[in-house]
Amino acid sequence: MQALYLENGSITYHSDYPIPSPTSDQALIRITCAGICSTDLELVQGYAGFEGVPGHEFVGVVQESLDKKWIGQRVVGSINLGCGHCHQCQSEGPEHCSNRSVLGIIDHDGAFADFIVLPVINLFPVPDTLSDREAVFTEPIAAALRIREQIILPPSNKVAVVGPGKLGMLIGQVLSLDGNEIIMLGRSRKSLDLAESLGLKTDLVSAVDSDRFDIVVEATGNEMGLRQALRIVRPRGTLVLKSTFNGKTTADLTKIVVGEINVVGSRCGPFEPALKLLASKAIEVKPMINGEYSLRDGLAAVEYARSPGVRKVLLYP
Amino acid sequence: MQALYLENGSITYHSDYPIPSPTSDQALIRITCAGICSTDLELVQGYAGFEGVPGHEFVGVVQESLDKKWIGQRVVGSINLGCGHCHQCQSEGPEHCSNRSVLGIIDHDGAFADFIVLPVINLFPVPDTLSDREAVFTEPIAAALRIREQIILPPSNKVAVVGPGKLGMLIGQVLSLDGNEIIMLGRSRKSLDLAESLGLKTDLVSAVDSDRFDIVVEATGNEMGLRQALRIVRPRGTLVLKSTFNGKTTADLTKIVVGEINVVGSRCGPFEPALKLLASKAIEVKPMINGEYSLRDGLAAVEYARSPGVRKVLLYP
Repeated sequence: MQALYLENGSITYHSDYPIPSPTSDQALIRITCAGICSTDLELVQGYAGFEGVPGHEFVGVVQESLDKKWIGQRVVGSINLGCGHCHQCQSEGPEHCSNRSVLGIIDHDGAFADFIVLPVINLFPVPDTLSDREAVFTEPIAAALRIREQIILPPSNKVAVVGPGKLGMLIGQVLSLDGNEIIMLGRSRKSLDLAESLGLKTDLVSAVDSDRFDIVVEATGNEMGLRQALRIVRPRGTLVLKSTFNGKTTADLTKIVVGEINVVGSRCGPFEPALKLLASKAIEVKPMINGEYSLRDGLAAVEYARSPGVRKVLLYP
Repeated sequence: MQALYLENGSITYHSDYPIPSPTSDQALIRITCAGICSTDLELVQGYAGFEGVPGHEFVGVVQESLDKKWIGQRVVGSINLGCGHCHQCQSEGPEHCSNRSVLGIIDHDGAFADFIVLPVINLFPVPDTLSDREAVFTEPIAAALRIREQIILPPSNKVAVVGPGKLGMLIGQVLSLDGNEIIMLGRSRKSLDLAESLGLKTDLVSAVDSDRFDIVVEATGNEMGLRQALRIVRPRGTLVLKSTFNGKTTADLTKIVVGEINVVGSRCGPFEPALKLLASKAIEVKPMINGEYSLRDGLAAVEYARSPGVRKVLLYP
């Protein structure tokens, strides 16, 4: 099958990569669409030392499964595969299993390929009303929804999202759903155009007063974004870290201590409500798609996804 | 009056420093005992750019006050002086006023002197049953108690304190009060002797498995301590940052995001319960006193307080 393969920090296209074999609890899924996420770009730069096929945002059709009801079903899938036996699996779920593999990130080939395997318990049927290019946003919308599982967002709170990129734009929309006024903050006016066209309030992050926001979501994954996010969160406010940082990051931790900031790391979220939000068209995703490539041109797609200002790039096997 | 004075990163002894004049809402307090805290040692090294008289842990006797009932009263005092008018003062108290001064730390001369002034609303009477050398621990015990105001500590949780120093030993004792088994973690066996003699469980921090504790309190204020604390907190666990860090600190923030760690900055706490714990002898403080100096020998005291393994050093004007 076709696959993009990552090894020693270099990514290559293969036309004869072996099709994976599902175990008894897994399905073989034919990928119909995959999305390139910032984490994928970090993987290519060496984050997490992953070797294999990247890609964890996908839509596909089940081709093989012992449970026959899945065959032919269009699905999306959650990305963590826990051992199912350890204390963490039992208490926190597979997301925090210390023996876990993660689709396209840790020890499990991902979706930049013609096929993947995934346990059937990870699968969610996609409603017919959703196109592939909408449904492929299920995973990042779930990640945005995760914030709502972790912290209380009082409707009167001042909330800012730093970083109007792929994930930041979804977070801004998800946190606006109940009437909260979310401000999207970016480094340049141009970076805020999409946020404005979607009706979100915007500002330059550098223009914002210090200690201004009750809740700040950091969605840049870079040191400068983190510094700004820490600067603008108020004493006793909440800073949600939503992006992974590649490598060690320097931060002025004194603000966290002296300002008694509550810092909340946030990762994977719930798929069912994400699909529901997509189906009800509550979240706009199509304006975020900046490029669509065939998997054969996957290397060019990855290169393009890296360009400043580019949000979602999709791959079609 | 006598005072230690900090300027341009050098600390000097003065015998003729001017006695401060209380405003109408302040009391003039004659210091009878002061404690040297790690923050003071950081101030001497340039933290927060403070110029003036350091010292914020004190016991004293009110000498002047418009409210006559305070005169002659032995007191301890909370250290933050808010403007009283701003949004932060109204909502969060003076600890987070952006115009605040802080005794011996920001824009307000501190207790390494014969006298200080402090608003009477900051004062707490000291019970007669407490000696000065016990009562001087009120402020750091209050800081330890602050953790209990910020997070839930389920009695069955695994809790570790990294750093068995001045503040760490008080935190370990305070968090043990309701039957929780607290483990004190240090860099060397010798650093853990006091914790053991007080009946606390101990271990070398380097010997502890990763992802082991539900709640970890970082009380070293150095980068290595932070790294260990992050390493040993479990996914979805809580990391309390209790020590200020001097300057920018490098940390692997990826563990916070991927492990969905909740990081809680923690600073000043409530004085009344701290005095109550001291009065009931629930917290052992005397074994933590390693040196007692006259204020005249204050520079030697500061030097000694810096020595490895030294916990509390007291100053007597």
